[in-house]
Parts: sequence; structure tokens; C-alpha cells
Amino acid sequence: MTESVLANPTRNQALSAQQRLRGKVYATPVLRNYDLDEQCGAQLWLKAENMQRVGAFKARGAYNAISQLTADQLGNGITTYSSGNHAQAVAWAARGFRLKATIFMPTNAPAIKVDAVKALGAEVVSVGTTSLERHAAAKEFAAESKATIIEPFDDANIIVGQATASLELQQEVTARANGAILDELFVPVGGGGLLAGACIAFEGSPTKIIAVEPEGCSSMKASLAAGEVVAMEPGPTLADGLKPTRVGELNFAIAKDRVGKAITVNDKEIGEALVKLLLTTKTLVEPSGAAALAGALRSATKGTRVGVLLSGGNIAPATLANLLRTHG
Amino acid sequence: MTESVLANPTRNQALSAQQRLRGKVYATPVLRNYDLDEQCGAQLWLKAENMQRVGAFKARGAYNAISQLTADQLGNGITTYSSGNHAQAVAWAARGFRLKATIFMPTNAPAIKVDAVKALGAEVVSVGTTSLERHAAAKEFAAESKATIIEPFDDANIIVGQATASLELQQEVTARANGAILDELFVPVGGGGLLAGACIAFEGSPTKIIAVEPEGCSSMKASLAAGEVVAMEPGPTLADGLKPTRVGELNFAIAKDRVGKAITVNDKEIGEALVKLLLTTKTLVEPSGAAALAGALRSATKGTRVGVLLSGGNIAPATLANLLRTHG
Repeated sequence: MTESVLANPTRNQALSAQQRLRGKVYATPVLRNYDLDEQCGAQLWLKAENMQRVGAFKARGAYNAISQLTADQLGNGITTYSSGNHAQAVAWAARGFRLKATIFMPTNAPAIKVDAVKALGAEVVSVGTTSLERHAAAKEFAAESKATIIEPFDDANIIVGQATASLELQQEVTARANGAILDELFVPVGGGGLLAGACIAFEGSPTKIIAVEPEGCSSMKASLAAGEVVAMEPGPTLADGLKPTRVGELNFAIAKDRVGKAITVNDKEIGEALVKLLLTTKTLVEPSGAAALAGALRSATKGTRVGVLLSGGNIAPATLANLLRTHG
Repeated sequence: MTESVLANPTRNQALSAQQRLRGKVYATPVLRNYDLDEQCGAQLWLKAENMQRVGAFKARGAYNAISQLTADQLGNGITTYSSGNHAQAVAWAARGFRLKATIFMPTNAPAIKVDAVKALGAEVVSVGTTSLERHAAAKEFAAESKATIIEPFDDANIIVGQATASLELQQEVTARANGAILDELFVPVGGGGLLAGACIAFEGSPTKIIAVEPEGCSSMKASLAAGEVVAMEPGPTLADGLKPTRVGELNFAIAKDRVGKAITVNDKEIGEALVKLLLTTKTLVEPSGAAALAGALRSATKGTRVGVLLSGGNIAPATLANLLRTHG
């Protein structure tokens, strides 16, 4: 965890971040579709972070974290480690601030994500296949170069940035549903940045927050059960963005008293949810971005008002073509 | 052309239709994406009618036209003829009004569209491959059964309904761009319902309206050049929704003094635009729905504010998979 001025991120800090991000990231649409509602048996409010800058909510946290660096830090550049969307987000935000960015990505990262990072002007270093391996490489690089590590999730400024997606969803539901609130909110979990952000945004609200992880990559579920962070060798999953070895310490600390339930979804459910969303609402998500919807389609309480965070939309054309052939 | 109370549809009638349609059809999002803007060299405002009820703007016109029928007419049910999206729209609106609908579709209509019409409770009769053949069949059926024909495009109530998509786009641009207006608007043209609607919505505005047709299916372009409606045997095109044999008389009459330019796009441009839109903005359109974007990508005036009507999103999964393999 990098040093942070924010030990206990709050809803007010997220509201400040929302001001800071205005005009920098998109205020993404909140989609409604009655046919999908009918299939789910609940009223779904889909926050389309797949339509965010660089195609994922990660743009929010990266921009927010980099905007808080000091002049001294800026001069030494930044680095990070990521399987994909956070890498793109950091490269994108670094370009905006004209910073040098060196990014450690796994050797098995989808080519579409590696190419996108390079196209944004960052240097990519491929290393290992787990978050632990690439984290170690980034730490070593940071020690040598004095570059600042922009953490993927275990950092207060990142969490506060990600919280703005949930804030916008909450605000739009209130505005469009005559002051009503969400009964449930389904959130995909990798390292827990989006989840911790959701917990902050919905501070003091009765909305039940439901964490959704891929089967075999359920560090948050295991951690919530154990009462402390539990590492887990991630199994294979379509949801390449949701397989860190362990959730963040700060993320878990924020989530543990606020998350109402943690569930897992399998690849079949993820693929079906992705294709169903695409054909029904005409919205493309990546497998990680379909996980929360898969959870909602199976577990949403019937007849209630349900938020779903569609976290990202970066999928290789060939992967999508295969999913269409399987589930179309 | 069916009888209509509106001989010369006006912008005020479209504003009334907008009130009538509120809560019945979606006020679809207007999408902005800076990466796509960069690729186009212009500021694109994408009206996402692919996200409309039944996946196309046709829901607007069908609902509006059916809402104007008399009690006498309602009792005899309705009929129509369409290659797909208008058929779905009529079936959907008929279900809402609890009417019997009999729909004549071409024998080569995509299965996804035929199935959708049946799922909405309408009866489908397959006949021929051209709009003339299915129109003749519908007229014969209407004469026997006294059912009312809901025209696909050559009808004032249909045109007024379709105009509401352009009205919403215009209103949202004004609201989000500090009172600015669109410099150009790219509109896909089949029979000309959406185009005539755009002309009405932008009555009195300096926005230049550009009609986009597939190569080999350019009845509007030929008609504008000839000063009268010119029929054309439609050639093969990916854009199955844009191949009527001739544009509507009323549609042409409205368009002829208002359309600034008519252009054509080929299948390669349509496929590329569809895949580019999907991968960049995460929005799925059908080939017909990508035609206007293909036109804008090639012909939009650099540096200007450009509206694009994404008219529909109903594409067979296998067709999409093929386009991803070709253009992804």
C-alpha cells in the first residue's frame, strides 16, 4: 500500500473527488431495459462504466490518485502493475498530466489491453502471471527509479476515485426514481477497489451491497468469512480482471462491516450474462464487467430496485466472437 | 399511403408526439466518446436508438400511429409489412394496446427479427423478398379483413413519431453544449421515415441534414437528383433495414427541400463502422444502424459538431461474430 493522506476514506471525500473528476472522466449513462428487468424479475439500474474513458471505471481511481501527487513525485514518473484496465487507466491519466509511466503487466494479458496501454504512450514490461509477481517487479523498479507506484486497488485515493461511480449511480437513481433508493447493489470484486468505493458512496444508506467474484477467485468471500484477508491462488476464469491473489487490506477493512453478502459466479453464467446484455441492451462489457450482472440475474431479490456496476468493456474481438457462438 | 389526419407534419406535431410517447418509449441516451471523435475529426453526438424499445427507432412511429386509430379501426386489428424492425415495433405497440397484429415479412428476413415479432404475439406471414411484394400481400389482407395497415414509413403519423428521436437529440445537444446546435446530422435512409422526421424536428434550424444510404439501395439520392421519387431494385447490402424499393412519397416531399446532401456507403465501411463503434463506445448497432456513422466517419466536416442517428441494434449473433472476425 502506498502512503496516502486518507486513512479512512469517507463519502465526503468521494463527493470532492467527483468535483475533481468532472470533465476528466465521463459521467457514464445509467441504463434501464424493461426486457432485461423481465428476465431478471427485478428493476435493474445498470451503471455503464464499460463506457468510461479507457473502457473501465479504473480511469476514475487512476486520475484521482495521480492528481494528488506532489511536484517532487511527479518529476520521477509513475509506475504500476495490472492485468489490464488499471494499466490503461494509469497510462491514460499519465498522458493527461504529461508523466512518464512504466507499467508491469502479466505475460498472459490480452493483447488488446497491452496494445491499448502502449498506444497511450506508456512503457509496458511483461512479467509473470500473478499480481504478486508483477507487484514485486514494480516495487523493485520504483525503488531504483524513485517512480511512484499507483496502486491498483489497495489505496485510499484509488478507492475514493472508484467511489464516484457508485455516487453517480445513487444520484441518478434518486433523480429518476423520485427520490427512491436502490434495495441492492451488485459489485464485481477483484482487488476490491470498486467494492470499497461502493461501501463509501452508500455510507449510511440501507442499500444492501453484494460482492460478486468468479468461482475460484473469491478472496473477498473467503476473507469476509475468515474475518481477515485470505490469499488465494486464482483459478482459471473468463473474468481476467477479477483474479488478484488477494483483496486489498484497506479494501477489506472498509468492506467487512458493510457488505451484505458475497457470492460467486461461474464462466457459463458470466458468458450468458455478457451475451444477454449485448443482445438486449446493445451494451458490450468484458467478462469481468458481466460478473455483477450474472450475480444479479441469479440472486437479485424479486421485485426490488437493483443496481449493477458494469465495470468494464475491453474484450478481444475473437473472445467476443467465441462467446456469441456459444451463448448467442 | 394510409389515410392520415396530418398532411403536412410539423415540428409542433412532433413535440406533441414527444409528450404522447413519454413513458412508452425510452428517451435513449446520447453518447459521446472522445476517442471516436478523434478518429472522425469531428465532435460526434450519437443518438442511441439501438437502445430503443424493440431495439430500433421504429417503436416511436408505430406507437404514435397506432395511438391515433379510432375505436372502429381498433376492433379490426392491424397489419403491416416490413423486413424487420418496423414489424417488431408494430407487434410491440399492438401488444401494448391489446390489438391483433398480422405482419408480412420477407422470406429472407433474419431469423432473429422474425422470432422477435412472434415472441411479441403477432402473427407472421412470410412473403417474397421485396417491399413491393409484401406491401401487396398486406393490402390484400387488409381489404379482406378490414385490418388497418400501419405503414412502415410513408405516413404522416409515422414520420411525426420518428421525428421525436431527432427532437430528443436536438434538445440534449442544446442542454449539454450550452445552447449550441449541431452543424451536421447524418441520418440513415431506407424508406425515409427517420429522415423526414429529422427534417421536421430540425425545421428552421441551420443544421445540415445528410441522408446516408447503402450503395445500390439509394432511392433517396436518385430521387433528390431527379426531383421525384425514383424506384430502384435494391442491390445486396449488409444493411437489411435500408433496402425498400422506393422511398415514400410523403417522405420525399418533406426531404426534398431540406436535405443538404445524400451520400452512399458500402458494406466494408458499414462493417468497419459497426465494429469500431462496438469496440470504442461499447455500443452494438445492426448494419443499418451503422450506416450513418459510416457516412460521418468519411464525410463529416472536420472540427464541427455532428449528430448521428444510430437507428437500430438488432443483429444476429452469427452475423456479428463474422463482422468481428473480418473487422475486429
